[in-house]
Amino acid sequence: MRLPIGFRAGATQAGIKPSGKPDLALLVSGTPCSWAFVGTLNKAAAPCVARGRQLLAAGQGLQAIVVNAGNANCATGEQGIWADARMAELAAAQLQLAPETVLTASTGVIGQPLPVEKIEAALPQIRLGLEIDPFMEAIMTTDLVPKMAEATLSSGARVVGVCKGSGMIAPNMATMLAYIVSDAAVSQEELRRGWQGVVDKSFNQVTVDTDTSTNDMAVLMTNGAAGPVDLAEFWQAVERVCVELARKLARDGEGATKLLTVKVTGAKSDVEARKAALSVAASPLWKSAVYGNDPNWGRVMMALGKAGVALEPDKVRITLQGIPLYAGKVLEFDRAQASQAMQAEEVLVEADLGLGEGQGTAWGCDLTEGYVRINALYTT
Amino acid sequence: MRLPIGFRAGATQAGIKPSGKPDLALLVSGTPCSWAFVGTLNKAAAPCVARGRQLLAAGQGLQAIVVNAGNANCATGEQGIWADARMAELAAAQLQLAPETVLTASTGVIGQPLPVEKIEAALPQIRLGLEIDPFMEAIMTTDLVPKMAEATLSSGARVVGVCKGSGMIAPNMATMLAYIVSDAAVSQEELRRGWQGVVDKSFNQVTVDTDTSTNDMAVLMTNGAAGPVDLAEFWQAVERVCVELARKLARDGEGATKLLTVKVTGAKSDVEARKAALSVAASPLWKSAVYGNDPNWGRVMMALGKAGVALEPDKVRITLQGIPLYAGKVLEFDRAQASQAMQAEEVLVEADLGLGEGQGTAWGCDLTEGYVRINALYTT
Repeated sequence: MRLPIGFRAGATQAGIKPSGKPDLALLVSGTPCSWAFVGTLNKAAAPCVARGRQLLAAGQGLQAIVVNAGNANCATGEQGIWADARMAELAAAQLQLAPETVLTASTGVIGQPLPVEKIEAALPQIRLGLEIDPFMEAIMTTDLVPKMAEATLSSGARVVGVCKGSGMIAPNMATMLAYIVSDAAVSQEELRRGWQGVVDKSFNQVTVDTDTSTNDMAVLMTNGAAGPVDLAEFWQAVERVCVELARKLARDGEGATKLLTVKVTGAKSDVEARKAALSVAASPLWKSAVYGNDPNWGRVMMALGKAGVALEPDKVRITLQGIPLYAGKVLEFDRAQASQAMQAEEVLVEADLGLGEGQGTAWGCDLTEGYVRINALYTT
Repeated sequence: MRLPIGFRAGATQAGIKPSGKPDLALLVSGTPCSWAFVGTLNKAAAPCVARGRQLLAAGQGLQAIVVNAGNANCATGEQGIWADARMAELAAAQLQLAPETVLTASTGVIGQPLPVEKIEAALPQIRLGLEIDPFMEAIMTTDLVPKMAEATLSSGARVVGVCKGSGMIAPNMATMLAYIVSDAAVSQEELRRGWQGVVDKSFNQVTVDTDTSTNDMAVLMTNGAAGPVDLAEFWQAVERVCVELARKLARDGEGATKLLTVKVTGAKSDVEARKAALSVAASPLWKSAVYGNDPNWGRVMMALGKAGVALEPDKVRITLQGIPLYAGKVLEFDRAQASQAMQAEEVLVEADLGLGEGQGTAWGCDLTEGYVRINALYTT
């Protein structure tokens, strides 16, 4: 996928991933960018997340992102903080930038020292180009597919986004690593005002396994190379890109065979609707039923009930793949037909709580034996 | 297991479970009991939970419990409320008691009408005896083993407890169905004062899959037949019985091959310690690692970090099966030896947060392909 004007990207093999696949990547803008950043709320956050927050507070424009995959550089103490700063210095020196304009990110196994010497040796091999694909491929860990999305504004400005993540994916933070770049001219203030809202409706509504990563970050950066844009149109495009990435993230959840989309309407507020939708998308019992094509809607009701939002079962309506299953009371339905309708790439649950105007959507995936297998043996 | 003095129990096959196993059970005291009750916080709670709260508020002594297994009688609307009251009336008539002294409980599939006519036909077949085992066996659903525990006080008074539950097990409520009966003489006020505290340290610290059941309840009842007891000793015995049941519940989690025990010390408070312990015991990633005998302690750190309690990674110490893995920094350890130590019936994680005096324990189980298989096809 072609990058917006003024951006370049590249990657190489540094030998951090045991597989020998590309694992070190650069994303660079020719000029300083306005940017916004949301990082994980996990209290064992990695040094790169803390450093990102510091850079944001320092207020300089962002010009490059350096990412290594295969090692999260988390719970690695003083050495980890040093290694993270060193990775920024090395990338900055190579790109002839100030280290304060280079954001770092690490993703992979927690608690193993980051081999900075490998990064130092490999960085000069990176050739920058106009496509984001090599960057995307290098930042993947257990991801099976690259996740990219784009949108073009009426002015010709473009928005291009990538994200990685497949396990340790849960709400209340940005999801793993997501980078959205645009050549639109948008001020730093405007970006920071709007970014959290988009993240709340996209990445924060994805759940694979309720485990919140220590290294999550979602970054939005614009270099203005394509000139000014209509702000409403810009944010719509950013949200469209992020929702598309969020859906891809859920569909590629570890071991997943299906995308699970949960739409809640009639909640007391949008926030309650999003919370209820996420509770259904995260329920291991409902996710297992989705895997088994079992229209066991009682588990949807259970998950709505535990969500911590206003709920009156007698007012709830539940629809699965368009088939009404419950409407304040148990409905008659053809179980075999409902089960067959669940044998699809995407399973859609709609729940109308009947209490207000709030609406929200969440994305998840089915829970399969594959998730267990992938995670029973990951470090060893 | 022999019941305390003055209690009798029995069960029969009513034909609610498709398997044809016993599914209707009675637990009866010869005289009215002091009692305490904790019910699920799920907002889609079943009629039996709402009725239990009403009985408790009405203030009468409790004399009997009637339980059906195989049908949760939840999300069944007006008919469900009627069916629940009818079950109490039928049991009360047979036992020559007032319906207000009979607690009901249902457990099983959500959203299917309860066949009261089957209960009416089967109730007269129940023969009451002095052992609790038939009651225990009849209330099981996906449980593989009966879960019973007992303690004897120095006065000779006894405490006997049973519980059922294997999936849809998560904190913040009593766990599925738990009944603790004693012939000690303890006032209703004293029981209600102490019960929530015991539940918080035992059943509420168990997690199998983070899904909160709609039908949970934990009941404590004493008939005084063995006379007065030392209250401190009584509560210690009740807690010992409940913790033993909690451990059995976790070990029998759906698909589990191991008990996972997480002890947290050095937290800012006991409440924070319990929360942190539960977060580790509930993490799908750590649970998968326990299944795979993978000493991937970074996932323990991740789960501590997402628990919402005070945490400074540099002060944390993590021990697995007695082997120190992390002490503010990554420790060298023999990975093969640690993996071998995890091949046990019980895996113990100890985390010292290094911040205060708070301590707490949680119990869970490993996450296996078996959990997925059991839950992918349960109703159909």
